[in-house]
Amino acid sequence: MKSIIGLSAAALLATVASSEAKEGMFTPDQLPDISRDLRKTGLRLNANDLSDLTAFPMGAVISLGNCTASFVSPYGLAVTNHHCARGSVQYNSTEDNNYLRDGFLAATRADELPAAPGSRIYVTVKVDDVTSDIVGGVDGTLSGRERFDEIDRREKSLIRACEEDPGHRCQVASFFGGLQYKLIKRLEIRDVRLVYAPADSIGKYGGDIDNWRWPRHTGDFAFYRAYVAPDGSAADYAEGNVPFTPDHFLSVSAAGLDDGDFVMAAGYPGSTSRYARLIEVENTFDWFYPTYVDIIGAWLKTIEQASPAGSDARIKYESRIAGLNNTLKNFQGQIDGALRVGLADRRKTREAALNAWIAADASRAPYAEAIRQVDALAEESAREAQRNFWYNNATRPQLLSAAQRLYRLSKERRKPDADRERGYQERDMTFFRQSLEAIERRYDANVDKAEWLFFLDHYLRAPETLRSPALDAALGLEPEMETSELAARLEAYYKTTTLSDKDVRKKLMQATPTELEASEDPFMALAVALHETEMAQEERSKDRDGRRANLRPRYMQAIIDWQRAQGTVAYPDANSTLRVTYGNVIGGSPQDGLIYEPFTRLEGIAAKDTGIEPFNAPGLQLELIEAKDYGEYELRSINSVPVNFLSDLDSTGGNSGSATLNSRGHLVGLLFDGTIESVNSDWDFDPRTTRTIHVDTRYMLWVMEKVDNAGDLIDEMEIVRD
Amino acid sequence: MKSIIGLSAAALLATVASSEAKEGMFTPDQLPDISRDLRKTGLRLNANDLSDLTAFPMGAVISLGNCTASFVSPYGLAVTNHHCARGSVQYNSTEDNNYLRDGFLAATRADELPAAPGSRIYVTVKVDDVTSDIVGGVDGTLSGRERFDEIDRREKSLIRACEEDPGHRCQVASFFGGLQYKLIKRLEIRDVRLVYAPADSIGKYGGDIDNWRWPRHTGDFAFYRAYVAPDGSAADYAEGNVPFTPDHFLSVSAAGLDDGDFVMAAGYPGSTSRYARLIEVENTFDWFYPTYVDIIGAWLKTIEQASPAGSDARIKYESRIAGLNNTLKNFQGQIDGALRVGLADRRKTREAALNAWIAADASRAPYAEAIRQVDALAEESAREAQRNFWYNNATRPQLLSAAQRLYRLSKERRKPDADRERGYQERDMTFFRQSLEAIERRYDANVDKAEWLFFLDHYLRAPETLRSPALDAALGLEPEMETSELAARLEAYYKTTTLSDKDVRKKLMQATPTELEASEDPFMALAVALHETEMAQEERSKDRDGRRANLRPRYMQAIIDWQRAQGTVAYPDANSTLRVTYGNVIGGSPQDGLIYEPFTRLEGIAAKDTGIEPFNAPGLQLELIEAKDYGEYELRSINSVPVNFLSDLDSTGGNSGSATLNSRGHLVGLLFDGTIESVNSDWDFDPRTTRTIHVDTRYMLWVMEKVDNAGDLIDEMEIVRD
Repeated sequence: MKSIIGLSAAALLATVASSEAKEGMFTPDQLPDISRDLRKTGLRLNANDLSDLTAFPMGAVISLGNCTASFVSPYGLAVTNHHCARGSVQYNSTEDNNYLRDGFLAATRADELPAAPGSRIYVTVKVDDVTSDIVGGVDGTLSGRERFDEIDRREKSLIRACEEDPGHRCQVASFFGGLQYKLIKRLEIRDVRLVYAPADSIGKYGGDIDNWRWPRHTGDFAFYRAYVAPDGSAADYAEGNVPFTPDHFLSVSAAGLDDGDFVMAAGYPGSTSRYARLIEVENTFDWFYPTYVDIIGAWLKTIEQASPAGSDARIKYESRIAGLNNTLKNFQGQIDGALRVGLADRRKTREAALNAWIAADASRAPYAEAIRQVDALAEESAREAQRNFWYNNATRPQLLSAAQRLYRLSKERRKPDADRERGYQERDMTFFRQSLEAIERRYDANVDKAEWLFFLDHYLRAPETLRSPALDAALGLEPEMETSELAARLEAYYKTTTLSDKDVRKKLMQATPTELEASEDPFMALAVALHETEMAQEERSKDRDGRRANLRPRYMQAIIDWQRAQGTVAYPDANSTLRVTYGNVIGGSPQDGLIYEPFTRLEGIAAKDTGIEPFNAPGLQLELIEAKDYGEYELRSINSVPVNFLSDLDSTGGNSGSATLNSRGHLVGLLFDGTIESVNSDWDFDPRTTRTIHVDTRYMLWVMEKVDNAGDLIDEMEIVRD
Repeated sequence: MKSIIGLSAAALLATVASSEAKEGMFTPDQLPDISRDLRKTGLRLNANDLSDLTAFPMGAVISLGNCTASFVSPYGLAVTNHHCARGSVQYNSTEDNNYLRDGFLAATRADELPAAPGSRIYVTVKVDDVTSDIVGGVDGTLSGRERFDEIDRREKSLIRACEEDPGHRCQVASFFGGLQYKLIKRLEIRDVRLVYAPADSIGKYGGDIDNWRWPRHTGDFAFYRAYVAPDGSAADYAEGNVPFTPDHFLSVSAAGLDDGDFVMAAGYPGSTSRYARLIEVENTFDWFYPTYVDIIGAWLKTIEQASPAGSDARIKYESRIAGLNNTLKNFQGQIDGALRVGLADRRKTREAALNAWIAADASRAPYAEAIRQVDALAEESAREAQRNFWYNNATRPQLLSAAQRLYRLSKERRKPDADRERGYQERDMTFFRQSLEAIERRYDANVDKAEWLFFLDHYLRAPETLRSPALDAALGLEPEMETSELAARLEAYYKTTTLSDKDVRKKLMQATPTELEASEDPFMALAVALHETEMAQEERSKDRDGRRANLRPRYMQAIIDWQRAQGTVAYPDANSTLRVTYGNVIGGSPQDGLIYEPFTRLEGIAAKDTGIEPFNAPGLQLELIEAKDYGEYELRSINSVPVNFLSDLDSTGGNSGSATLNSRGHLVGLLFDGTIESVNSDWDFDPRTTRTIHVDTRYMLWVMEKVDNAGDLIDEMEIVRD
């Protein structure tokens, strides 16, 4: 008897090897250049159409700031990940009305709830290359600090002109380390409402345990709706607002997607470091990640102990806890992955190859000089990061941070708007106010104090060169201080501060520096005492940024030329702008002896279920699974409703919620995670193991129809079966 | 494009479902009854031959007490797991000569090292059914205590007669809970020597992290040699001893085994609870496992903090640490597994079905009554276990335990040998002495004290009903005691005791009770003070055992009859006697979305390797893998040398080191572990997920030839290529 397993494994490995994942987060304007490969991989749309941001389907893909979403109805209905909307679920949750635990479905549009303060939907409407406007004719002899200011001034000027169109938000994004600049204009929808989010026991099923893991069974989807003023203009939340009418929305597929099929994802990946220098790699993997990993565990414990499970404080810190767990797993995964692939050695090899290519032609000598300076600057930045590390952590208290921003605002407000620091201009004031308000829902004095004590304890044990005389003096810190003495000192801050009052914070947006300098609030006094230290840090940082803006483009030009010489097209590192990645539904072999199937099944939920969070699916759901009540959502090749699926797409944080489209541009899933073996791809894309995880739209529709009774929303969408 | 992965997965699930793993640890005398299925599964030997323990191949399979081994040469060479021989490697290791780290290979036979004290090789030579001798005509009206004594007396009498043949060790084993008794006679080889063990970085590759996991890449093999006196009789270690000549030894296969092939394993599985009552399941899974899991982590930390890495103390506690980690992972795996499969519900269903069968026929009424009493007894046992739990843990100190055994010995020695308690008869004295000696290598005062303090701390926090007045009084314990005060009190024990001296301990084997009662040694004084408490615990335990010996056979008879009525043949729970399990090489799907391949490859070692323990393969090995230097050991279907493989065999602890034989009875591997999804099979065999892990003989030979230069040992064995 020969079972099929060994054979299939061998065959699988051959398949995986021959169809390498397609590295690349392409800007839409690059897509026509790769249209041939897009077609070959399975796209049935015209690649040129994909580069038109105002046409179908890109016109339907929108940004939430840190996540991606898509319009899926003519009435501004937008689908994104549960974990992207969870902050809004949390914002509306109380001990009595726990939507995190129970889920939320608005019975009618009137019942839709305001999203968390600061929630936005951005619809990209225009992208222009403004490289010459930003760096054309900039004096080559400027110091770093001067260059920073010059670029900053030009960017602000372009943004101001762009934002003269009301209701829009503009940004200048830099590509290839400053080799290219683009002005991106987005419609800014400010009235965002929560329409539907399944319970955590579906939307966060598997929780932190399954995070970054395959096999996965997470219903990571939720729905917002964009609202505008009756005249169609962007507006703050108001009862009289009406649903936004998008130019385009996606059809939702209820059938068809199978193993090997073409998929692409459009979204806003946040940041990658594919062109980082070895020095940067080493600083990150030898110092930053391990240092951070070392403290996160104890930090989490500190938060959890100060916010008992089930308490109001715990609800306030749910997001923070989840975020830290996520970071911990990510960093550890990156450290493990770097060891596994030999990241530093691979980077050394790449740099040697680049050096050899440069050395082969005397005309390339300027590249060598630029690279030398890039490395020197990277080393300087690494030193500075290490120098500031404990100080920055020791100044984390939320009210201190608010006081610092308020004091800075009081100083910036004395300047003409155009000259103010970014974040302190009039265009920033709505956000500024909302972020002061949001503290209300994320802050608990006991937890904040415990965190502060935790970090000050580390700070005190750091070598003197890593401490700040200003902080030491302001807090009266002594290296040998007893924890109890320190705790008593911090206690006084929380007892006497008035900044914990939202109205006090907002009122102080109008204060003058003199008034704040006279304040008796201990956090404000500390903010004033630390101001010079902070400004000096900022000055050094801006100077480095200015020098980097001069050097990095030359290094990236070397990379581009070198890659072109080898027949490869370079793509820019992720920078939170709209990108497209494409490939196929595909399983994988993350390690010798182990195979990932491309789809998971409903039955996998029941098998994982223990009744204990995070494996506590709703009883009704388990009954439906037991009864094999698949409705119209079964995938025959797996004999079940597909829950999550894997692809070889190139993604990173910020891609969360990205529309996963099939060859016809229909929505077949939402990208929501990568496997733990993929997290290193931020630094070094490994086509053998990089896999992206999506929630299947068939599972989403099955939950909506069968479990959560959200048929009205299904009716609102355009459901297709291909 | 359709990749093959999804298809193969579906096909795999079909395969797995259709070829269910074969539950059953059969006694050799049961094999003729299942010869048809053995043949159908692939065995090419005559099943009847397998039941002859003195014939090939069973004659080559031997016991080490807690593990299994096999003779593989005419010169007494025996192969077992590295983790079974590791105690002997540890015993011979010092900080200067660290064989754990560097491995050990005797250059010549004269260089072979004595195994750890107490090491034995047992060769089963005869098995007789003695049921009627043990329980025939036992008075039905006896109390539990009386029945215990009667059976005990009869067993001792049989053992005494059996052991009149010098050099042999006999035991009476009970099957089906006392429905059947067998007298097993074994040749006891007392001069066991360590021949070869690879370094931990091969033999324990993956360490605690990979323990119970697949994919696996552990070289879990090592070699002992059995020595006897020149006249062939069993003897203590002596320079003039000569290698033992076994009647049979196994040929070692260097080729051929592939996915789906027949395999069987012969070994000594320790204990299973397949027929446990629901009450026993609940006591274990609701109380014992969770309670133990809760403390093991902190207990491990206590040991590790008291024995800094690299210290001599740490070497002494390596085994203990590994054992506790193993237990922790096992118990947690069992808890998870029980939740996953719904163990308690399944047991409830089974008991209801059995009850229904009994109720269907009035003649079966006595079964119902027996089961009622079995359950009452199980409940009583559970209560007693909970009552003794903290007391038993609080009396763990090694020197206290030695003192208790010595004091008991002084009392037992006053009785005629036949009347003495088991463990205190003349036949036990060699072991007794060796176990007093072994403390030397496993004891460190600081660690022992830290452990004691740890457990006393828990003991003090337990409710008063779970504490012992004798222990409280002897140690002057108060519930509200400060840890520092308690620590100071314990300190005095370690400062003044002389029991830490091996010679003192051994000398006390001759002491009288009166002498020991007058001892000023604090541990001896404590032993004397606790004696009555201990004896009362023992009395209650023996009484329960006696009642159980009366009731359990009736319950098991009900099970056997009931299963027979459904056409199933029952097999007895594991009891450390020789058993055979058979099946096939097969991968698996441990959960939805995940597939285990049946073999791992050399390349998997390199991929896992970080250079940091336990993923720190020797440099030479990594070079050989990089060079694809497979020698003659490649398995073509996986394009590499197979390292470990999976099968669907039915195994448990004690099976470690079991000979894994192919259809011709050649050694193809050594059984060394189960997957984490399998640990629950001790209670409830799940054919879908139970998988046993073996080290492949091709990997063993590859390491011996290429890495460790152990060619002489290969030459000593009979290598075959089928």
